Amino acid sequence: MAPPKSQPTPPGALVIFGAGGDLTKRLIIPALYNLMRAKLLSDRFVLVGVGHSEQDEDAWKKGLHDFLEGVVKKGGAEFEAAKIDEAVWDKLSKTMSFMSGGDVSKPATYDKLKEHLKKRQAETNFEDNIIFYLAIADSLFQTTIDELGKADMLKEDKGFRRIIIEKPFGHDLPSAKALNKDILKSAREEQIYRIDHFLGKETVQNIMALRFANGLFEPLWNRDRIDHVQITVAESIGIERRGKFYEATGALRDMVPNHLFQLLAMTAMEPPVSFEAEDVRAKKAEVFKAIHPLAPEDAVRGQYAAGMVDGAVVAGYRHEQDVAPESTVETYVAMRVMIDNWRWAGVPFYLRTGKRMSARSTEIAIRFKKAPYSLFRDTPTDELSADWMILHIQPDEGISLKFNAKRPGPAVVLEGVAMDFRYADWFKQASAVGYETLIYDCLTGDATLFQRADQIEAAWAVVQPVLDNWANRDPSGFPNYTAGSAGPGAADALIARDRRSWRPVR
Amino acid sequence: MAPPKSQPTPPGALVIFGAGGDLTKRLIIPALYNLMRAKLLSDRFVLVGVGHSEQDEDAWKKGLHDFLEGVVKKGGAEFEAAKIDEAVWDKLSKTMSFMSGGDVSKPATYDKLKEHLKKRQAETNFEDNIIFYLAIADSLFQTTIDELGKADMLKEDKGFRRIIIEKPFGHDLPSAKALNKDILKSAREEQIYRIDHFLGKETVQNIMALRFANGLFEPLWNRDRIDHVQITVAESIGIERRGKFYEATGALRDMVPNHLFQLLAMTAMEPPVSFEAEDVRAKKAEVFKAIHPLAPEDAVRGQYAAGMVDGAVVAGYRHEQDVAPESTVETYVAMRVMIDNWRWAGVPFYLRTGKRMSARSTEIAIRFKKAPYSLFRDTPTDELSADWMILHIQPDEGISLKFNAKRPGPAVVLEGVAMDFRYADWFKQASAVGYETLIYDCLTGDATLFQRADQIEAAWAVVQPVLDNWANRDPSGFPNYTAGSAGPGAADALIARDRRSWRPVR
Repeated sequence: MAPPKSQPTPPGALVIFGAGGDLTKRLIIPALYNLMRAKLLSDRFVLVGVGHSEQDEDAWKKGLHDFLEGVVKKGGAEFEAAKIDEAVWDKLSKTMSFMSGGDVSKPATYDKLKEHLKKRQAETNFEDNIIFYLAIADSLFQTTIDELGKADMLKEDKGFRRIIIEKPFGHDLPSAKALNKDILKSAREEQIYRIDHFLGKETVQNIMALRFANGLFEPLWNRDRIDHVQITVAESIGIERRGKFYEATGALRDMVPNHLFQLLAMTAMEPPVSFEAEDVRAKKAEVFKAIHPLAPEDAVRGQYAAGMVDGAVVAGYRHEQDVAPESTVETYVAMRVMIDNWRWAGVPFYLRTGKRMSARSTEIAIRFKKAPYSLFRDTPTDELSADWMILHIQPDEGISLKFNAKRPGPAVVLEGVAMDFRYADWFKQASAVGYETLIYDCLTGDATLFQRADQIEAAWAVVQPVLDNWANRDPSGFPNYTAGSAGPGAADALIARDRRSWRPVR
Repeated sequence: MAPPKSQPTPPGALVIFGAGGDLTKRLIIPALYNLMRAKLLSDRFVLVGVGHSEQDEDAWKKGLHDFLEGVVKKGGAEFEAAKIDEAVWDKLSKTMSFMSGGDVSKPATYDKLKEHLKKRQAETNFEDNIIFYLAIADSLFQTTIDELGKADMLKEDKGFRRIIIEKPFGHDLPSAKALNKDILKSAREEQIYRIDHFLGKETVQNIMALRFANGLFEPLWNRDRIDHVQITVAESIGIERRGKFYEATGALRDMVPNHLFQLLAMTAMEPPVSFEAEDVRAKKAEVFKAIHPLAPEDAVRGQYAAGMVDGAVVAGYRHEQDVAPESTVETYVAMRVMIDNWRWAGVPFYLRTGKRMSARSTEIAIRFKKAPYSLFRDTPTDELSADWMILHIQPDEGISLKFNAKRPGPAVVLEGVAMDFRYADWFKQASAVGYETLIYDCLTGDATLFQRADQIEAAWAVVQPVLDNWANRDPSGFPNYTAGSAGPGAADALIARDRRSWRPVR
């Protein structure tokens, strides 16, 4: 069981494979900086960077410091002050050491790492607790875990040994199963922490608090009260320079079985017995298991053509770097998901995600059933609008309630109004980069926000029929949506079949 | 049935008895001005002022104009612009005529009035629709209605004839019954429009919209979800110059069977079949009938001592003008009301109202039951706070929801947050003086917001045991609360018996 979470972590070493890479500087180091600032790291915390390239430790640290400075200066919601607190950085810096030339495929690397860790352990007694953070290409996951196992570094004789990996966890159901099986040759499931960075976001975590800590919302959270749910992860950016990756992946694999399904699970799960990891993950897995098998008509795909985004002309997907000129890879997907259980029977969950949409917006929108109209029959109110609860996940984290109020004046005219709660208005410590919680949780052994092997497989199992269907027939009319729009007409048709419509993306 | 309410009223004359008085200039004329500005008055609307004193029509009009100018200048929420729209005033002024020397107790007055109305009818065909607004002392209600009856002015041969009266509607159950009986000798119940100006307030009317137009709130509105309700009408002013009136009345009679019970009824009523007056009033009457008979310990009274209000020293009640130095009249009352029906069994409604309290605040606060705590047992959250929905009626009309959210950061720490809806933020046409709706409704024949005889009697029947009990024994320890406080300790004890506490008054 996890200890109460306002305490510093237990002693431990964090070993980052890929310490010279993008993930390390963009997310891991800023998160550690925030944890250090919040005094949530043990004073026996040790950070070991393993880099493939030959690099000097000081140069590595300086690189990270300077990048962090840029991040902090850019500010936004992530940092309180516009400059680094150098005292905090110094403390963090003192925990850091660098091991260069660490080719993860070579057994020698692990011998060297053992020596390195031995030395660090002697300086700072981290009680042999070690996390290996695989901030490397997913193609190297298996090798690295294999080698860690062979080097006997995953045995938990004295302290804990944990592995953090990031998606993709496979590219379909068979490969996900194979990966899990492989990993479990060298490590136990409890040692694996599969990060979905969406779960580090405050609003996502707050879904559970909102639902289960309030007498107000939970009574509404079922098929008696809810008409349908829309989960949107809209991006205005394109595929950037990741054409090669994207051509092999597509929007569905990239976003649905991980991010969108996690949001779905948080929204739809039954109350867990406790917030302990296994209890929460069990309830999430049940959601995936309860999803009704998808028929071909339950999913549509799209690909963007050239268009205007934020006032600038942008290229179509097929003209992006490293993309085939006749590519049939989808950059947009919308799905209709039904959950066959007592809480949700008959309540569709509409999911959509896409690149180059009109705005960057992630939200879960819950539409409530309408009140009976009869009462208003003899008033100027033509029709009652439905109420919505919208959980805004990005860019501005918060919650909105949309409901009907009477417009002031002698006439009974109803008008839709909203009440809003914005995290930024209430909490001075603004939201962090999102990795703080995840790293903290791994150090303290709380796996709640990480994905379990069975969840991953259950999620892939849900989308596998769609992958199969799409693999067997080429999409028609690609590209089928303009960059800067809300997606293809096919997605509108998908939801219109049920006499509903998408919320605007903005 | 009432016509849709965005149309102008039907033609009609409004006769104000007491046209030189306070109510006329403070509320009726400003409301008519607003209705005229909103183009909601018929172009065959006629206003006849009947004044007791000898006064010139022009002087009367000028007096009203100048007073209105002051009201408009003072601004506040009531008027859009800081000065009178003279074109609107001119239109209103053209509808106005004055009949001086109108002693309501003299039959001659009514002959004179008939002549006056005949002339006005000839000029402007108001189709013989007449409303008599009794803006006079309640001791004159009966005489005036008697005389109107004797003069045959309440017969509805051609147009409608209606009477508007304002509280007090009696001072206990027997006198209320007697008054109703007397009135009904001269007029039918359908002709009587008993104003409770609280019902003219937007938020009060909005309670119905909120409850019955939204799929979001109604499911929560019952004993399964609600722990208790607090209805507060706190005033920071004292009794002003109304010592004589107040000594004969007291807080209970002045506020409870009318204002507080109307708020109670709006909150507790079952959904009516329609918004038609009889349907709504039937449901309200049912609430009063379902109230469990009050025991002596269900009500406490208080009287203010000298103290500080808004930074100024103020006198105690017994030192106010026209108040007996040993007065036992209450200036504060708190009650615990149980409603014996399926919706509310076991849910206490705590009501309180008082003069010279710490702030001016009218609100209905609904406290929801807590979520089960078990889920949070192993987190730093000691206890879950309950959720509240607060309907703010004055001074700022709006709605707040208070609920638990997760404080950002790695720890699962819950914190109470709120989301607010303020009318002023959403509706440019700010709320009016409150009488617009009531006058408009009376002209169009919509009695929804007016009190029916059986409601009045049912409300008095509820408080009669308390009146009897108080009449039989003197209060102990008067004065028992300090001006500027939240009320007497006895009120805290009343709610503490149920292991609950009052919300702060602010």
